[in-house]
Amino acid sequence: MTNDSYTTYKNLSIEDSDFKDDQFDLVLSSQAFHYVESFELICEKVFRYIKPGGSFVFSVEHPIFTSRDEQSWYYDEKGNALHWPVDHYQSEGLRETSFLTENVTKYHRTVSTYINELIKAGLTIKKVEESRVTTKAIENNPLMKDENRRPMFLLISVYKPMV
Amino acid sequence: MTNDSYTTYKNLSIEDSDFKDDQFDLVLSSQAFHYVESFELICEKVFRYIKPGGSFVFSVEHPIFTSRDEQSWYYDEKGNALHWPVDHYQSEGLRETSFLTENVTKYHRTVSTYINELIKAGLTIKKVEESRVTTKAIENNPLMKDENRRPMFLLISVYKPMV
Repeated sequence: MTNDSYTTYKNLSIEDSDFKDDQFDLVLSSQAFHYVESFELICEKVFRYIKPGGSFVFSVEHPIFTSRDEQSWYYDEKGNALHWPVDHYQSEGLRETSFLTENVTKYHRTVSTYINELIKAGLTIKKVEESRVTTKAIENNPLMKDENRRPMFLLISVYKPMV
Repeated sequence: MTNDSYTTYKNLSIEDSDFKDDQFDLVLSSQAFHYVESFELICEKVFRYIKPGGSFVFSVEHPIFTSRDEQSWYYDEKGNALHWPVDHYQSEGLRETSFLTENVTKYHRTVSTYINELIKAGLTIKKVEESRVTTKAIENNPLMKDENRRPMFLLISVYKPMV
């Protein structure tokens, strides 16, 4: 926390947050909510925190990406990525993964759950995006070559209606 | 077409339709739009046709289902459905499939394209669903056992705002 009243940093989980109502023009979150068990709770809190007309913009790992514990391509015996496997899509909840490091706990939710919880909380959907890369990005970084074969991230922008 | 002014059937493609503005309380479509090339055109027309406050409800094959031409499970050598393969997700457009019969032409679109085109046309998202089956349905029909492993259908409900 700084002395500048316009720049205050709080290090706490969103579940434990407790801000005043109608306080923020924008709530922004990047790649965090798939580690949080209750998205319903997040939506209720954020709806309360933002001003009417204010926005809520976030990204999460895409449900196509989080459906299986393994979170990896299906490879042939030569190591080629044959396709991205989806399974257990409608079984929402805990996933035990080894993404970047071992023993990472995540929560899989469907696309419809993400959208419907936002609407249920009173927010209006403005735009939905699924990560993709440009041809130029693939030319510059060959590791990107499979990124358009399945979406890794889901990005959603909503706002709180004025009335 | 019948003589009852309240019940008129027209047999024509939605692309060729030309109804009056603000005429319908509800536009309903089941499993048709993934055969239509331009979803943008559909959204523009439907927005115009329905009254302010009216609804547009439809189902399509889910983008997870339409991403590959093959539209089938990935099986092991014993015939077990290992997982549902996703590929070419961001490559929207024509798919040459053999669903139910041979040589069926469909159009793959992403979830975000379906949602964003509706919003761009002026419609507000009310609810999004992805097909799933109950435990009882699976007990009654063993063919349903894999239906929660990936969504076959995407169902969207939107409305035209009053103002």
